[in-house]
Amino acid sequence: MSTMTAPSESDASSATGTTPAGLPVYDVDVHEAFKSLDDLLPYLEEPWRTLMGRGSFKGITPPYAKWASGGGGRADAKPADGGPPGSDYDLMCEQLMDAYNIKKVVLTGYFFPVIMEDMQVELASALAQAYNDYQIDQWLNRDERFLGSVHVAPQDPQAAAAEIDRIGEHPQMVQVMLAMTTRAYGDPFYFPIYEAAERRGLRIAFHQSTHVQGACGMGRYYIERHMLIPQATMSQCISLLCNGVFDRFPDLRFMALEGGWTWLPHVLWRMDREYRSLRQEIPWVKKMPSSYFRDDKRMLFATQPTEDITADEWLKTQELIGSDDLLVFATDYPHFDFDSPIRSLPARLPEDLKRKILFDTAHEFYGV
Amino acid sequence: MSTMTAPSESDASSATGTTPAGLPVYDVDVHEAFKSLDDLLPYLEEPWRTLMGRGSFKGITPPYAKWASGGGGRADAKPADGGPPGSDYDLMCEQLMDAYNIKKVVLTGYFFPVIMEDMQVELASALAQAYNDYQIDQWLNRDERFLGSVHVAPQDPQAAAAEIDRIGEHPQMVQVMLAMTTRAYGDPFYFPIYEAAERRGLRIAFHQSTHVQGACGMGRYYIERHMLIPQATMSQCISLLCNGVFDRFPDLRFMALEGGWTWLPHVLWRMDREYRSLRQEIPWVKKMPSSYFRDDKRMLFATQPTEDITADEWLKTQELIGSDDLLVFATDYPHFDFDSPIRSLPARLPEDLKRKILFDTAHEFYGV
Repeated sequence: MSTMTAPSESDASSATGTTPAGLPVYDVDVHEAFKSLDDLLPYLEEPWRTLMGRGSFKGITPPYAKWASGGGGRADAKPADGGPPGSDYDLMCEQLMDAYNIKKVVLTGYFFPVIMEDMQVELASALAQAYNDYQIDQWLNRDERFLGSVHVAPQDPQAAAAEIDRIGEHPQMVQVMLAMTTRAYGDPFYFPIYEAAERRGLRIAFHQSTHVQGACGMGRYYIERHMLIPQATMSQCISLLCNGVFDRFPDLRFMALEGGWTWLPHVLWRMDREYRSLRQEIPWVKKMPSSYFRDDKRMLFATQPTEDITADEWLKTQELIGSDDLLVFATDYPHFDFDSPIRSLPARLPEDLKRKILFDTAHEFYGV
Repeated sequence: MSTMTAPSESDASSATGTTPAGLPVYDVDVHEAFKSLDDLLPYLEEPWRTLMGRGSFKGITPPYAKWASGGGGRADAKPADGGPPGSDYDLMCEQLMDAYNIKKVVLTGYFFPVIMEDMQVELASALAQAYNDYQIDQWLNRDERFLGSVHVAPQDPQAAAAEIDRIGEHPQMVQVMLAMTTRAYGDPFYFPIYEAAERRGLRIAFHQSTHVQGACGMGRYYIERHMLIPQATMSQCISLLCNGVFDRFPDLRFMALEGGWTWLPHVLWRMDREYRSLRQEIPWVKKMPSSYFRDDKRMLFATQPTEDITADEWLKTQELIGSDDLLVFATDYPHFDFDSPIRSLPARLPEDLKRKILFDTAHEFYGV
């Protein structure tokens, strides 16, 4: 299996618009984009509309120069009108849904990191609200294949809960988006968000963000940071478990995006070991930690970015996890490390497993 | 395989002083202790001797109450004289070396975390120097089975290098001890330490410390922190690689203590994937990342604390790593999560693999 940074000509054309054996695809991580912050102004309340209308906020970016030819995006995904990759619906149809037999697309935006962390908290919540209305108006209403993510500013859990209540029951909204930074989301501070999501029948999705880092910081290089990203997902598993989130919110399920999955054997074993030894400290956790994952499937993991492993290595790793029901497929369109549905899964994976990963498991998870 | 917190009576007695099949053991992580800071005063220079003699420093501990019956130590390892576990040589002989056919013991102290991070930097270096002289005088000189670790305060790399030069050629000194905190040790800031270690023929050992944390902080519970610890070791692998430490210091080898190893398939695959995609950014890294580990064995990993896995899971994980030469055995005596040489490795591991892990690989690594 080769690493793809973008699909080659032959990849798309030889496939004539289908995945191998014509399998349908459920893509759980696609980043739609607005052309500029001005697109959000009609949806933004005052006084924020005036403030943002002045161009007084430039967004937040990580401090790295990027070697990939398209920067953070696929070089070929930049629309002719000069907008950012992901901002053109027609191009997205052509390069993504039509090219790969994609039946459902979970939109995850790229706005959520911008509204996080250091920004003034009320403005962050107002931008989340504006973004959700923009997302419904400009994207969800345009194509019923799109499923949406409720964007929130988790630094104000009460405002986040109110926003979830406001639009969470939109028929295409499937999850609440929590950007991974250095926040450990098992903290009871975030429980109002989980209560609202459970109330509205939504999933919770984690996605790495501009602010994510590893156990020893962000790294001195972009490549280094890219190697460290999965640690934040490991930390969410551990934080949710130890703080009893799985027990306190029995109907809540989680989706981990861009955080890897081949570390699961280690994290499940390590959690179980420590639980055997020290569980007196967390009596609200009622079962072996691995059981919440392996048996109850409380968290699923998106495959993108796939590591370069053989079918044999993939299957052995799944066997060590003890489940083949935890993986779902994502392209991460339109980013530079796009995973092609045709070429990113090892060719020799069994057909029924491919079907599960590419479609069935996500379909069951989102229940749409 | 059962998790051991301390060896049972039957464990030690049924074994009559030997490991299964009488295999010799090389224990790469044993924490010798001083009875109180007063033990170091004779080795401490002025003005620090006066300052510390006043009892004006109380040490540093993590902010957790510990449920394990002996706290951080084995309940049965506390000497009759009231000193801390690990401070009594005779008890250590009885409970460790004589009980388990241990031929070599790498002393790793527990002082290194105390001298780190927030302490006044010159005092930290002075304490490291005093500790090294104490270690040589009270431990290394007493038993030739003991091998020593040069303690340094890495926040002052020049002072650390001078200390490595001062005592690094002591015949029983085998490594420089770097406490893992939130420091990413690939940073060129630490290169003077690596230059000195290479000059003196020493290895570098990483060990978790009071200050270690995960990608989203330290955790709200002790058990949570214990689950997060391996992330700091993953980060060191990535930091050393990306900053070219393996290439710039070709004779230097590393030992990772208490950081786990079953995450290696993931980290090796992830590093290789990112290297294929983004290696232009780090042209000083000359080979596929996994090759520094799998082929060149630049870093070894101590098994303690072993996860509760079967022989089959152990062998599958090793196969995914692609090497059976990267693991070495440690007991972590006298801590509560002590690994027994008799019971912590899965019983059905092949005999020749057990011999490698228990003795041969460490013997080759330290070359003593």
